[in-house]
Amino acid sequence: MNQKHFARPLAKLIAELSRLPGVGGKTAQRLAFHILEMEEKEALSLAGAIADAKRNMRRCSECGDLTDREPCAVCADAARDRSVICVVESPRDVAAIERLREFNGLFHVLHGAISPMDGIGPEDINIKQLLVRLRSNDEAVEVILATNPTVEGEATAMYIARLVKPAGIKVTRIAHGVPVGGDLEYADEVTLARAMEGRREL
Amino acid sequence: MNQKHFARPLAKLIAELSRLPGVGGKTAQRLAFHILEMEEKEALSLAGAIADAKRNMRRCSECGDLTDREPCAVCADAARDRSVICVVESPRDVAAIERLREFNGLFHVLHGAISPMDGIGPEDINIKQLLVRLRSNDEAVEVILATNPTVEGEATAMYIARLVKPAGIKVTRIAHGVPVGGDLEYADEVTLARAMEGRREL
Repeated sequence: MNQKHFARPLAKLIAELSRLPGVGGKTAQRLAFHILEMEEKEALSLAGAIADAKRNMRRCSECGDLTDREPCAVCADAARDRSVICVVESPRDVAAIERLREFNGLFHVLHGAISPMDGIGPEDINIKQLLVRLRSNDEAVEVILATNPTVEGEATAMYIARLVKPAGIKVTRIAHGVPVGGDLEYADEVTLARAMEGRREL
Repeated sequence: MNQKHFARPLAKLIAELSRLPGVGGKTAQRLAFHILEMEEKEALSLAGAIADAKRNMRRCSECGDLTDREPCAVCADAARDRSVICVVESPRDVAAIERLREFNGLFHVLHGAISPMDGIGPEDINIKQLLVRLRSNDEAVEVILATNPTVEGEATAMYIARLVKPAGIKVTRIAHGVPVGGDLEYADEVTLARAMEGRREL
C-alpha cells in the first residue's frame, strides 16, 4: 500500500505495526490512526508498556519461561510439586496450562521445537537445561511432554523421551485430545484439560 | 480472561494492547508474546514509533488533518487547487481519497460528525474553522461534502450545506450508489433507491 502521502511519523508507525503477526496494511493503518486519536497519556502508556515488558521480562534461568524476577514465580513457589515437570514449546503454552488451574507441577519451556526443515536441531532449543535440571532435582518423578501435536512437536517429544527415560524418570505425553495439526495455544480449556488428564507413559 | 499468572510487565502490556480497536484478549496475548520474542531493538523501535507519532503529529491549523508540519503537506502544496475543498469526517478519509490520486483540491477534516444521540453537536466538531477558511479564501468555488453515508454523516452534510450555500459557494455531496464490482442483488434497498435516484444519462 502506498504511504507516500502519510507524514513520516505516521508512516513509520504504520510500518512498525504491520510487522506484528496478523496485522496487515489496513489493520496497521486503523491502529495507527486510533493511536493518534488516543489521549497522549494513553498512547505513551502503550509505548511504555512495550518498552518495559521488553526490558524487564527475561527468561527464567531455571525453566526458561518469561518472567520479571529470577527465578520465575512458578519456580520460586514452594507450594509447587517439584516432582513433575511439564515441557512445553513456548511461554504461551505455560499461560494456557496455568489457566486450567489443574496442574501444580513445574514447567520447562523449550522455546521452539526440533525442525530439521527449518534448520532447528536439539541444540537450538532449551533441552540441555532440562537435563541439567533433572540431574540436580532428586525429586523429579515425571516429565510430561506437552509439546504441540505437530510433526515438530512429536519429534521433539520423542527426542526428549529417549534422553530422559534411561534416567529412570517416567515420561508421559499429553493425550491427543488436542486436535492434531493444531496449536496448543488455541485449544479450548476442556480439550486441553482432557489432554493433560489422559497423558500416557511413553 | 484471568491474567493473574502473568508477570506484571506482561499483564500490563496485554492490558494496554487489548484497548486497541479489534484487539481482544487472545489477540492481545498473542501480540504481547510476539513482542517479547522480538529483538530488543525492534520492540523499542515499535514503542518509539508510537511515542514519536503521538508527540510529533498535530492537527493542521488550516484543515485539521493530522500532520508533522504546520501547515500540512496538502495545505502547503502550491500545486493544489485551492478552489475546491473536500470535507471529510476523519484523517483516515483523507488517506482514502489521497490514495485515488484523482482529487487535487484541499481537505477539511471535521474529526467526527454531528450526532445528537452521542451528545455531539456542530460546535464539537471542526465546522467553525471551515467557515473561517471559506471566508478568508476568495478562490473557494466548491465544497464537496464527503462525510460518511450514515445518518450522522448525512445530517452533518446537510448542516454544513445550509451554512455554506448562502455564501454563494457551490456545495456538492459525493454520490451514493451501488459499489463498483458489487452485485446489484446484494445492495441494500436504501442504497439501491439512491442509485436509481442518482442515475445519469449516458
